[in-house]
Amino acid sequence: MTTAKRDTYTPETLLSVAVRVFNERGYDGTSMEHLSKAAGISKSSIYHHVTGKEELLRRAVSRALDGLFGILGEEHARVGHAADRLEYVVRRMVEVLITELPYVTLLLRVRGNTETERWALERRRDFDHRVAELLKAAAADGEVRADVEVRLATRLVFGMINSIVEWYRPDGRGMSEREVADTVVRLVFGGLRQAG
Amino acid sequence: MTTAKRDTYTPETLLSVAVRVFNERGYDGTSMEHLSKAAGISKSSIYHHVTGKEELLRRAVSRALDGLFGILGEEHARVGHAADRLEYVVRRMVEVLITELPYVTLLLRVRGNTETERWALERRRDFDHRVAELLKAAAADGEVRADVEVRLATRLVFGMINSIVEWYRPDGRGMSEREVADTVVRLVFGGLRQAG
Repeated sequence: MTTAKRDTYTPETLLSVAVRVFNERGYDGTSMEHLSKAAGISKSSIYHHVTGKEELLRRAVSRALDGLFGILGEEHARVGHAADRLEYVVRRMVEVLITELPYVTLLLRVRGNTETERWALERRRDFDHRVAELLKAAAADGEVRADVEVRLATRLVFGMINSIVEWYRPDGRGMSEREVADTVVRLVFGGLRQAG
Repeated sequence: MTTAKRDTYTPETLLSVAVRVFNERGYDGTSMEHLSKAAGISKSSIYHHVTGKEELLRRAVSRALDGLFGILGEEHARVGHAADRLEYVVRRMVEVLITELPYVTLLLRVRGNTETERWALERRRDFDHRVAELLKAAAADGEVRADVEVRLATRLVFGMINSIVEWYRPDGRGMSEREVADTVVRLVFGGLRQAG
């Protein structure tokens, strides 16, 4: 039995509960009933804060997307050689992914069944495209090896970065976001091989 | 309405239908009813071939695991410098992933709710561990840069390779498995940066 708590939620704290449930059950598999149970407040209390689960999804993926797009507005992403800007963006992507782990995890699992999901996918593609443009610019400057195709390389680099959500746990025992970001930058730009 | 076909399935062809449904609906979300509809044969016909959906899962992930473990038995994975063996294994992982795309996709999505899923996760960890050992041996030979931690590097390399299931489509219009494998090997070992 759920003992209904007094509703002391703010939109922010309710969002963090919703994101946890979405990540555990999948967005499609989550009902308002599940959210109500997880939050320990009635469904009508939740409707006091939001119009429904799709609004919670939109707020959650917006937080992830704002974090990612925010990177592109930062000075080091805008000014300098394309290769340096790309390196900065890769590092910051790892940091944002770890700082906003549950929100980015949700964003990466979005499937496209609802309008909000399709909007999120569109925005993700837009972000990927901006990073691919940076990679293309670095290639045009001769700072990226010529034997990798830009679109494929972008996908693989995103694959490496995004995989972090599958295993990173912020339990204090593991690696810091700085260590992970350093390693990703080393591997993405220099690869595994010991420089001769 | 489903018009029941005469059952002309072999265990092999039934498996390929089951894997497609598992990948579309998730293993948990798939019932024998769904499998019966997708195959166009009755549930009892399916039970003629297998004991149930868990046996289909086991056969499917076994196929993926056999493909991956098979690599480790190949000559170039067993003989030579650790760094060359590692490079060979990375290339072959990409090739197996693409050749056995639906089977590896299913393997990578296994959650651990049933005995078969937990067994599959255990075997995956075992494979990852074998590749990590190769990376460690290459590092001990001084052929891998010293400033990346082996376990983290293994995870990131697997993240890059496994991400291929998210976007690779064998439609004949895209890249061949050879092109993808070449690019992965270049990025994993040499990174993006144009060698000075």
